[in-house]
Amino acid sequence: MYYPEPISKLIDSFTKLPGIGPKTAVRLAFFVLNMKEDDVLDFAKSLVSAKRELTHCSVCGHITDVDPCSICQDESRDSSIICVVQDPKDVIAMEKMKEFSGRYHVLHGAISPMDGIGPEDINVPGLLSRLKDEAVEELILATNPNIEGEATAMYISRLVKPSGIKTTRIAHGLPMGGDLEYADEVTLSKAMEGRREL
Amino acid sequence: MYYPEPISKLIDSFTKLPGIGPKTAVRLAFFVLNMKEDDVLDFAKSLVSAKRELTHCSVCGHITDVDPCSICQDESRDSSIICVVQDPKDVIAMEKMKEFSGRYHVLHGAISPMDGIGPEDINVPGLLSRLKDEAVEELILATNPNIEGEATAMYISRLVKPSGIKTTRIAHGLPMGGDLEYADEVTLSKAMEGRREL
Repeated sequence: MYYPEPISKLIDSFTKLPGIGPKTAVRLAFFVLNMKEDDVLDFAKSLVSAKRELTHCSVCGHITDVDPCSICQDESRDSSIICVVQDPKDVIAMEKMKEFSGRYHVLHGAISPMDGIGPEDINVPGLLSRLKDEAVEELILATNPNIEGEATAMYISRLVKPSGIKTTRIAHGLPMGGDLEYADEVTLSKAMEGRREL
Repeated sequence: MYYPEPISKLIDSFTKLPGIGPKTAVRLAFFVLNMKEDDVLDFAKSLVSAKRELTHCSVCGHITDVDPCSICQDESRDSSIICVVQDPKDVIAMEKMKEFSGRYHVLHGAISPMDGIGPEDINVPGLLSRLKDEAVEELILATNPNIEGEATAMYISRLVKPSGIKTTRIAHGLPMGGDLEYADEVTLSKAMEGRREL
């Protein structure tokens, strides 16, 4: 036992967080010892209240402290367009862009047969029931540009097509500020494939 | 407001920790949302109890949940040798070595005239009163090998010398597993200076 128990417990707690190894955990724990008591209490409270007060919106699945979430409640948003994303963090990224005024649907994952994750394991049934109830005209599939995300987009697109709702996929290509020289072949091939007349 | 309030508060709390930028803070906060509630409560409790239950040992200044600390209470340790270090983390490093069986004295800093830190601002008076009360034979000065640490070691050594207590400084030289080719000049010069007959 090198450390007094209270600090070794705190070190253990920090070590459980992703990307925090034993040395960083020790550094953080000692930093906490030198913090003001009020700040430590605030930190502890924010941990508990984030865990306890946040749930997933019953409509779109985004994390929220009110249900339905503020986006679903916002009457000024265009309810005819739903942007389908994998993760609540993707909603935040979209909102930061400040250009999309439709609504969202968070899948909380992607279809991945390798990991045994099927359409029922992610929020696809919720999406289908929304499409029945709401007057949706366009479904933007903004799942990640990788195998699982592509498969999920493809699956949802095929499922929805018979209902006549337009399904679109966000564009793949060179990232802005990127360099053609360093682009990987798949990205470059997608960029060529998606070329548009100027 | 992109994030619901409880999570943005948690993100703020994480951002206050050293070496954690806004993106890592978001990642950690979302990780907490997916943790089990019990684990989050444990984390919150360990933060508060580490802050509240830990104090500095009234004898040696090491962090502890009992006073005097377990090292100062341990009768099997050699009380005639005191190892002076700058930081509680240095005590831990020494203890991990498992070769030192004396006692410690934690200065909580080093003399640094540039930052306005004098001997009274660190735990030097506490050391002097210990030297009066305890039968100390050797004082090992294990402050850091940099300007402040060297100055502190030099200062304490001069202060203690008249009392006849032996003061020693830990060796400077090439770190084990290091490479002579990549050693800096100062380290190399210290290594040459400290050479010993085989």
